[in-house]
Amino acid sequence: MPELLPGSDAALRARARQVIPGGLWGHLNAAKLPEGYPQFFAEAEGCRLRDVDGRETIDFMCSWGPIVLGHKHAVVEAAARAQAERGDTMNGPAPVLVELAELMVQMIPHADWILLGKNGTDATTACVTIARAATGRRKILVARGSYHGAVPWCSPSVAGVTAEDRAHLIQFDYNDTDSLDRAVAEAGADFAGIIVTAFRHDFARDQELATADFARHARQVCDTTGAALILDDVRAGFRIDLAGSWEPLGVRPDLSAYSKAIANGHPLAAMAGGERFREAATQVYTTGSFWCGAVPMAAALATLQELKRIDGPERMRAMGQRLRDGLAILARRHNLAVNQTGPAQMPLMTFVGDVDWKMGDAFCSEALRHGAYFHPRHNMFLSCAHGEADIDAALVAAEAGFAAVKRSIG
Amino acid sequence: MPELLPGSDAALRARARQVIPGGLWGHLNAAKLPEGYPQFFAEAEGCRLRDVDGRETIDFMCSWGPIVLGHKHAVVEAAARAQAERGDTMNGPAPVLVELAELMVQMIPHADWILLGKNGTDATTACVTIARAATGRRKILVARGSYHGAVPWCSPSVAGVTAEDRAHLIQFDYNDTDSLDRAVAEAGADFAGIIVTAFRHDFARDQELATADFARHARQVCDTTGAALILDDVRAGFRIDLAGSWEPLGVRPDLSAYSKAIANGHPLAAMAGGERFREAATQVYTTGSFWCGAVPMAAALATLQELKRIDGPERMRAMGQRLRDGLAILARRHNLAVNQTGPAQMPLMTFVGDVDWKMGDAFCSEALRHGAYFHPRHNMFLSCAHGEADIDAALVAAEAGFAAVKRSIG
Repeated sequence: MPELLPGSDAALRARARQVIPGGLWGHLNAAKLPEGYPQFFAEAEGCRLRDVDGRETIDFMCSWGPIVLGHKHAVVEAAARAQAERGDTMNGPAPVLVELAELMVQMIPHADWILLGKNGTDATTACVTIARAATGRRKILVARGSYHGAVPWCSPSVAGVTAEDRAHLIQFDYNDTDSLDRAVAEAGADFAGIIVTAFRHDFARDQELATADFARHARQVCDTTGAALILDDVRAGFRIDLAGSWEPLGVRPDLSAYSKAIANGHPLAAMAGGERFREAATQVYTTGSFWCGAVPMAAALATLQELKRIDGPERMRAMGQRLRDGLAILARRHNLAVNQTGPAQMPLMTFVGDVDWKMGDAFCSEALRHGAYFHPRHNMFLSCAHGEADIDAALVAAEAGFAAVKRSIG
Repeated sequence: MPELLPGSDAALRARARQVIPGGLWGHLNAAKLPEGYPQFFAEAEGCRLRDVDGRETIDFMCSWGPIVLGHKHAVVEAAARAQAERGDTMNGPAPVLVELAELMVQMIPHADWILLGKNGTDATTACVTIARAATGRRKILVARGSYHGAVPWCSPSVAGVTAEDRAHLIQFDYNDTDSLDRAVAEAGADFAGIIVTAFRHDFARDQELATADFARHARQVCDTTGAALILDDVRAGFRIDLAGSWEPLGVRPDLSAYSKAIANGHPLAAMAGGERFREAATQVYTTGSFWCGAVPMAAALATLQELKRIDGPERMRAMGQRLRDGLAILARRHNLAVNQTGPAQMPLMTFVGDVDWKMGDAFCSEALRHGAYFHPRHNMFLSCAHGEADIDAALVAAEAGFAAVKRSIG
């Protein structure tokens, strides 16, 4: 065995494998990434990452969503530091909680109140529980393959999950109103709610925007039955529309779940709801040791104000579109057929016919070597720190990626 | 209606009631506290709190556990700031993860590996799921009345909870080996594990230390059946013994859940386990958007090193004992009978015969007015920032509290 350089990615991985099952839990485990991707990071700033081996890349994953203004954003970090100098986790919240809650209620039209948590899973679980408490019913409709969190009722793994954990879930197909109707019929009088992601962003398949028809139909079946429409906006929230990701479709949920981008990387989640669900939200016991921590709230207040001030979603859309347009030109130049799906702020590019992901992996590995951190099969994320020069530099790296794909298929 | 002073506790509460169900979620809602307790806090330092109305109190709740070295501990905050200047939530962890995991595995004898999360509930839920995955069985034994978190399988509220959420739980009585045996018999071949708190610290009752007999018996029934012994050390962890709260009893669990004190107020949780459960911990999908955040890990590393360096548990025990001794003398001086229960680091004092909590509430309200933040019916928490002078000052406040109780009962 060759000696590993202390502090190198390889050395840290070897040590991690000893003391962490599989080397790392969950979605950030680099074993699931194309060859050459780093596991450990030394530094991040704006849209740039530096891994522990000293390689700098332009970041198109943004920590898988949380970084929406850019790493170490000056305004957010100043707000966080100022609050940290006063106090963080105390015997109750700081005044910033009220400011943040008022801002969110003003920003999100369907919201009359909010609750906070730490994980996206906290938010989706609380919304489902509130829907059941408010309606006195049990059945929750979920789209086949949608990700709503990492606990037994919704985890993509079934290890340790019992049948009862999912006893009251009924599946339907995303964007399929007939399928939704069948699920509603199956739930019958026990229909408590629908939980649905802002668009179809399932792992390892092309993305699909929600159709207005589907969203309106979901709203309508909830209206006629008294069930709760729960928008799982954990992944897309604050990137598509600051009023909620279905606002452009003209559809407002009863409850919505937020996390990821809400505080530019500080740990926070939020559940937002309308008046009809306030009493149930009081009855459901949802809490955690750090849920009144003031620093992430101060970071969230600064993040949301800044996103509003600069129209963050439009800025990310424009830069995402610039990336997408550039990728389309490069793909054509290399005679490679690609699919580009999802909203421009959260784009995904796959290669047509790439059933074993070899082309996507080859593209990403080579682009990484040339300085762009892409993902072959999970939606990517733009941030407001991505400027035109960053997109253009990433396209140079992408060009090397397309050339590598071309070489690999001979 | 009188005008409320902007920024006052009363004004903030009035605004909070509009935008947060019940004014605040969960355990930090001041509506559940004695009269006069503040809801909103302006500042905290060491063992001192300042509420938004400018009152300073000596803090015996320590944010309900998280603050173990004292608010804004210089060493912890310096480590957190240094990491924040490099990066926090990135596309993977920073090297500090490996250092923290190695320290925990070295510090906790039963642990061969760790996983991290954000909430105590993340840790207890993951441990239960890992126990089921490892054993291929479903039944989890829980002590009647024990708190293990705030999601449907374990929440103290049943609002929105379905019968299926708790279908595979079997209850026993804490410290009662016969009752445990009956639960084991009921589980039969489907016995996956026992989850048990470090001592009996149920809300609104006197505390009870775990007996060595009970702990050893729990270990033994797991050994003979292959079930997992899960220690829920979320509340007591790192205050009783840095090696695990049952280490003084000579009993080591298979899995343990940590959170609260692990990072002196920064949001972090941990699951620790032995070799036999490593593969199951790899199979169970447990993750969150901020679980690789490097700042709370840096804070945890500094916290645990500092607790070890200064023998934090012994320091908290000594100061807790000083408080307890002083309270006993004062109670006798006022001819009031009290029960003092639990470990000295996490003490609880109740009044004998105080069935409606009037005496406890009167005591706490008056002590608060004199500068000590106690709790009448939830265990309190010492931190390493409490010195002799702080305890003695708190006892002066307590004396006023006892006098108020005496007056109230005529």
